[in-house]
Amino acid sequence: MRLIVPLQRLIVHGRGGLILGSVLPCALFYLLQLHLKRHRSSSSSSSPKLSSRATPIAKPSHSPYYIGMDMARSDPYHNLHNPNGIIDLGIAENRAMSAFISEVMRGTLSLNPSQLVLTSGATPAVEILCFCLADHGDAFLIPAPYYPGFDRDVTYRTGVELIPVHCSSSDGFTFSRTTLDQAFNQARKQGKKVHGVLISNPSNPVGNILNRELLYDLLTFAKEKNIHIISDEVFAGSIYKNEEFVSMAKILQSEDSDRDRVHIIYGLSKDLSLPGYRVGAIYSCNENVLAASKKLTRFCSISTPTQKLLISMLSDKRFIQQYIRINQERLTKMYDLFVEGLKQLGIECTMSSGGLYCWVDMSGYIDPCDEKGELALWHKFINIAKINITPGLACHCIEPGWFRCCFTTLQENDIPIVMGRIRKITQLCASQTKMP
Amino acid sequence: MRLIVPLQRLIVHGRGGLILGSVLPCALFYLLQLHLKRHRSSSSSSSPKLSSRATPIAKPSHSPYYIGMDMARSDPYHNLHNPNGIIDLGIAENRAMSAFISEVMRGTLSLNPSQLVLTSGATPAVEILCFCLADHGDAFLIPAPYYPGFDRDVTYRTGVELIPVHCSSSDGFTFSRTTLDQAFNQARKQGKKVHGVLISNPSNPVGNILNRELLYDLLTFAKEKNIHIISDEVFAGSIYKNEEFVSMAKILQSEDSDRDRVHIIYGLSKDLSLPGYRVGAIYSCNENVLAASKKLTRFCSISTPTQKLLISMLSDKRFIQQYIRINQERLTKMYDLFVEGLKQLGIECTMSSGGLYCWVDMSGYIDPCDEKGELALWHKFINIAKINITPGLACHCIEPGWFRCCFTTLQENDIPIVMGRIRKITQLCASQTKMP
Repeated sequence: MRLIVPLQRLIVHGRGGLILGSVLPCALFYLLQLHLKRHRSSSSSSSPKLSSRATPIAKPSHSPYYIGMDMARSDPYHNLHNPNGIIDLGIAENRAMSAFISEVMRGTLSLNPSQLVLTSGATPAVEILCFCLADHGDAFLIPAPYYPGFDRDVTYRTGVELIPVHCSSSDGFTFSRTTLDQAFNQARKQGKKVHGVLISNPSNPVGNILNRELLYDLLTFAKEKNIHIISDEVFAGSIYKNEEFVSMAKILQSEDSDRDRVHIIYGLSKDLSLPGYRVGAIYSCNENVLAASKKLTRFCSISTPTQKLLISMLSDKRFIQQYIRINQERLTKMYDLFVEGLKQLGIECTMSSGGLYCWVDMSGYIDPCDEKGELALWHKFINIAKINITPGLACHCIEPGWFRCCFTTLQENDIPIVMGRIRKITQLCASQTKMP
Repeated sequence: MRLIVPLQRLIVHGRGGLILGSVLPCALFYLLQLHLKRHRSSSSSSSPKLSSRATPIAKPSHSPYYIGMDMARSDPYHNLHNPNGIIDLGIAENRAMSAFISEVMRGTLSLNPSQLVLTSGATPAVEILCFCLADHGDAFLIPAPYYPGFDRDVTYRTGVELIPVHCSSSDGFTFSRTTLDQAFNQARKQGKKVHGVLISNPSNPVGNILNRELLYDLLTFAKEKNIHIISDEVFAGSIYKNEEFVSMAKILQSEDSDRDRVHIIYGLSKDLSLPGYRVGAIYSCNENVLAASKKLTRFCSISTPTQKLLISMLSDKRFIQQYIRINQERLTKMYDLFVEGLKQLGIECTMSSGGLYCWVDMSGYIDPCDEKGELALWHKFINIAKINITPGLACHCIEPGWFRCCFTTLQENDIPIVMGRIRKITQLCASQTKMP
């Protein structure tokens, strides 16, 4: 019997040909699968790296100064209750917070208080995470337009760079797997080390909520690139009625692995309208990030009078439930009134689902149609109409003519006054366009 | 007439020789003086540099986001009082503190509230100054032994190195112009860029107060090297009766120039016994440092409920005066009792003038006479006597056997119990030495 088996460009004759022709492809196929499996498992099971500066901070201290403090804390002397305890000549509640966050997320989420690190606001929380997850010169991707404060929060002291993932009005200013990939590849080409993605959800300044599918896409992207995700969810409780918000923490609960790469920022400034209280939190399942973050709170711990106030406030479950409900009702009402007022002036906004602001399209009123024109309109607003709004360029938006308007500083009866002032500007713009 | 004038290696004859021989040396001497004068004035009048990372932060922002905020703040809309004011759709007391600090300094000092930047504790204040005055890899000299927390405050995130200026028991653990020069020159030889000196006054852990002469020496040293001084004065009000404390700010008031290089740290944790309140301050005359520091307080501002409490507390001048007086009386009493108790056990301390601690010489009880022996004694203290004290090695003290004991955690009637426990250890050490 004579068999001719084509084996790539090689032709093998006879019995040897039969064996080689059937066994070799099988073996090669098996090896290919093994390679792919190993490759896949190595990329999904490997933990994302901490920054080189956070690694030593995360380790337990060997200094007797800190060891002594810990020992004294765990067995403190008391003349009656613990007369054999340690006398400290060395120095001079996360539970309520996690319950509150769970309440804000409408009970869909149960957070482990031991994985929550409290900070004096979301601002230092973002900074701590950037210190922990990236070194000076490393970069984070960030869907743009984004909250202008991030430029200061992230770059002032950590030396971490923010690379915008530009989103467009045609996609409702939402990122996608494609835009993430494009930004990542371009950054790589420029020699930049991308260590993570920083998102805000509900987004600031657009006010849209990221849906489950997009969150899974983001997680898959982060897995494949072996990078971190920081999800800023400070507006989680400030969503409009009947909208559904899904926290990144919720997505994690349904995932068995890869919890190490997701870190959530929360704060009370927006959802409880308490910016002055300076209360924020980091939620993470990454033991090293938690260890380093806890030590870094020496720079931003919450003052005890504020802690006391908060515990009593957050422990009052009925008050909190009522607060969230009424707050969302009022937010929705103000949003509707504001958007309707603009509509009557012929001005459109993107569809928002949450936040204390709307994202307004005034591209029809700028001339020239670029950053210069946008800034000129902003000057008219603040100098003539005497209204302070945030131009898109401050949020790194590449489409000119978009503005963020925060409406929660207003009372209902202020709306006609504001709309009157805005009309003054639109009429002025219209008359200037008509001029020869 | 024939004149021969030696002019370096050149011999000039005749009238030309006379002119060259008299005019040239004069001209050269004049030029030398000019050079020296310029050199001197450039080193003394030139301002010490800010770090490269602080320089852009200190500059005014060009972002309409922040410009708009400032404008809206300066002319805010009110439906009755300011109906033509700016409507803010962009977002949502140093006086009491400076008066309090002046009171703490026994009225010898008048601080300008506009040169005071409030922070959430002295810890972030130290960190902010290090960010502003030095870049990653730069160094600060620090007289040692020093407060163990500085290692974290300074090095965790700023990347600034601390170089100890070792002080010895023979000098009462006080630095001098000579030790500063030695440390500076050695650091220079090792290629390190020294950007300043960080001192604590009253010193922690030794408790001594730096006298006027030494403060002037320090200022002269800083001028000559054109570097900064950070003076941590958090124990300024915690001094023992009849002792005189002189703030670095007081020295500056008598100096016409070079105020730009001195920056003072203050806080309420020690002098008002309010560590949990997280209230600290930076006092500086350097406009750029003030501008950058103010912006960096976004990471460490004081919460409003705490601010309210503080203003009412600090504004009560009678209460504050009484508090400081009684606190100093009690401190003095506890210090005397504690030192006397140790004396009766045969243990000596350095002469302290302030602070919540004493600096105790137990070198006679350590074996071997090195860090290992010191650590062994510390283990006996915490495990057998159940007393937590801070070994000198944690404070970077190079003489083994010194310990810091904070006595303000104790009540008067705790003293005999503590001394009883210490005696147990000294007796144990004595019996172990006797053993063959």
